[in-house]
Amino acid sequence: MSTFEANFPTEEYDRRINRTRRTMADRGFDMIVVTDPSNMSWLSGYDGWSFYVHQAILLKLEGEPIWWGRAMDAVGAGRTVFMAYDRIVGYDDTYVQNPDKHPMETLARLIDAEGGGTARIGVETDNYYYTAAAHATLLKHLPEATLIDSTGLVNWERAEKSHRELEYMRRAARIVERMHETILEKAEPGMRKNDLVAEISHAGIAGADGHWGDYPAIVPITPSGLDATAPHLTWDDQPLRRGESTFFEIAGAHRRYQCPQSRTLFFGQPPQHYRDAEMAVLEATEAGLAQARPGNRCEDVANAFNATLNRLGFEKDSRCGYAIGISYPPDWGERTMSFRRGDMSELRPGMTFHFMPALWLDDGGLEITEPILITETGVECLCRTPRMLFVKD
Amino acid sequence: MSTFEANFPTEEYDRRINRTRRTMADRGFDMIVVTDPSNMSWLSGYDGWSFYVHQAILLKLEGEPIWWGRAMDAVGAGRTVFMAYDRIVGYDDTYVQNPDKHPMETLARLIDAEGGGTARIGVETDNYYYTAAAHATLLKHLPEATLIDSTGLVNWERAEKSHRELEYMRRAARIVERMHETILEKAEPGMRKNDLVAEISHAGIAGADGHWGDYPAIVPITPSGLDATAPHLTWDDQPLRRGESTFFEIAGAHRRYQCPQSRTLFFGQPPQHYRDAEMAVLEATEAGLAQARPGNRCEDVANAFNATLNRLGFEKDSRCGYAIGISYPPDWGERTMSFRRGDMSELRPGMTFHFMPALWLDDGGLEITEPILITETGVECLCRTPRMLFVKD
Repeated sequence: MSTFEANFPTEEYDRRINRTRRTMADRGFDMIVVTDPSNMSWLSGYDGWSFYVHQAILLKLEGEPIWWGRAMDAVGAGRTVFMAYDRIVGYDDTYVQNPDKHPMETLARLIDAEGGGTARIGVETDNYYYTAAAHATLLKHLPEATLIDSTGLVNWERAEKSHRELEYMRRAARIVERMHETILEKAEPGMRKNDLVAEISHAGIAGADGHWGDYPAIVPITPSGLDATAPHLTWDDQPLRRGESTFFEIAGAHRRYQCPQSRTLFFGQPPQHYRDAEMAVLEATEAGLAQARPGNRCEDVANAFNATLNRLGFEKDSRCGYAIGISYPPDWGERTMSFRRGDMSELRPGMTFHFMPALWLDDGGLEITEPILITETGVECLCRTPRMLFVKD
Repeated sequence: MSTFEANFPTEEYDRRINRTRRTMADRGFDMIVVTDPSNMSWLSGYDGWSFYVHQAILLKLEGEPIWWGRAMDAVGAGRTVFMAYDRIVGYDDTYVQNPDKHPMETLARLIDAEGGGTARIGVETDNYYYTAAAHATLLKHLPEATLIDSTGLVNWERAEKSHRELEYMRRAARIVERMHETILEKAEPGMRKNDLVAEISHAGIAGADGHWGDYPAIVPITPSGLDATAPHLTWDDQPLRRGESTFFEIAGAHRRYQCPQSRTLFFGQPPQHYRDAEMAVLEATEAGLAQARPGNRCEDVANAFNATLNRLGFEKDSRCGYAIGISYPPDWGERTMSFRRGDMSELRPGMTFHFMPALWLDDGGLEITEPILITETGVECLCRTPRMLFVKD
């Protein structure tokens, strides 16, 4: 047993695995190869920054899952997964980043030894951690097996959060609130941007309410001025300036659960079109939230938001939200549901989303966003951060 | 032009592209699809945390490279790449994380429009950001083209650093020195681990010598006690303890250039076998460094290191180093050369490595590592951090 406290009781992993197996059976899979680190962790408890080498959880229709990865990381698996040591299999280090051979050769042998040589095997074909070469290697070394796309299969099982998962999400919510408070306390015109990001990161890792901060799956995105017309620039050392806005797209994290929330800070008197944009976003946000309830569809939230936004003279041509939960870099979303037209996914109690009505204007960005939980009757905003354009004079 | 200062003059990008094109021509490629964010940045200057969606640089044998990605990120491309706006192509947001269609359909159309419909096209088949589904989509929509593995092609061109790249590596070296100083200053028995990591991250982003800190491509890896028998566990809130060691595998970063360095801290009197391990690693490190010079092979460093280590009664069965430079998560290595038996890559002036002689013992870990530069005549350690087991009483 690790000094790392287990994040969930074994019964919770059992429930997750049983749910996943029902879907596997429905879809005709004999086994799945789970390479998404978030899915690996959700199914087994595995936690470690080892996803830069090939690794997976192998889940069959019965028996405990098998952790497979680099031999040196088998030790970390032994200290974090709920399974017994005999369910941990390592490959030797000569397979690491060696063009002459591929780690997936060893996974193919393991699958074969586990009776999967002629099986129907799910593989996450559009995950970062399942490369084209990984797939080609499995295909070559399992010539009698059938590899079928299972991208998103486990991700979808993760959508409705358990009581304890929500507890971790709420702790992460306290942390991101504290990070935004830190911005308001520390940011001043003339301050180097990186010095402010240092304070934000410090606050995020120190945590809040006695709960420690884990690393967010995306680093702080904090562009100012014209750079804030783009959504994903990070930071440099340019000073914060009067008459300019900066948005802060950040997340609190606890035990890998991610609670993202964005706010925008303006130094001085915001021009009228910022105020107009703020008003429009806040009113459209209320309209979207009013549709966020069990039984409604993801697109209902987006349509209500967009109709209000358009009526008030603004447009947003990208999705305005996505599912969130446990995550590893490079994405804190669950990559299942999106708030956009045509997404007919049904909202159910226990689902969590980042409602993300960001506007990127011609001269800057405005992000005022809310992590939300679908409740039995409607919606709950996980954070109490004031919903407004922050202004410091 | 961005308020983000350009990291390199356009002439440097020209030189990089010319070098890459010579290799492309030698290997018979008409164009390459570059999906590794580090390669994208090295060829074009592109910088942003947008690699969680599909994106690429398309490089032909002539003309400026083309940046291709999500439409909202085209704005960030416009603010960071050296190319003109007409070399930036965005796909609409409905392609994002939508199982009904794939962004690579739009890249296939772009390649076709660029005359690549029957071309020989290099694709980075074993990169995180080139998934099995991405490859299948390109294959399907470019039925007359030939897709050939080009994993590592650009990475290898990055191996020998320019004067300005070395300047950024040295700034990152100052930053990681400062991070280790911070550990020595702040760490105390009883301190929560996450509170120490908050200080480390603060120091890393604040930077050193007036140069700002960028985000490292791997978060701090800081396990204590038995958790330090595993190489890649991150942190939690367990207190630092007397009689226990903690290793700190961390990197300073500046403008995406990464300078990793590890040290180990023991509270109290280290047991004799720690002292023995320290002596062995230090002597084996000297033996390895003595082989790190132009004309020698990567394996020469590993063989000298391992022979000395074994003579002193210790074993290490994993590689003891790898190339470093510009990088994005999830890996700060260049994924080309490794210090291990059989790696016959020739060391050349300007190459940079993380010489990484970590030992994971039965009751803890010992990491005392050095980022190094191959010079005209031998080797230079980029950091001045004292090379020893740190002990605090």
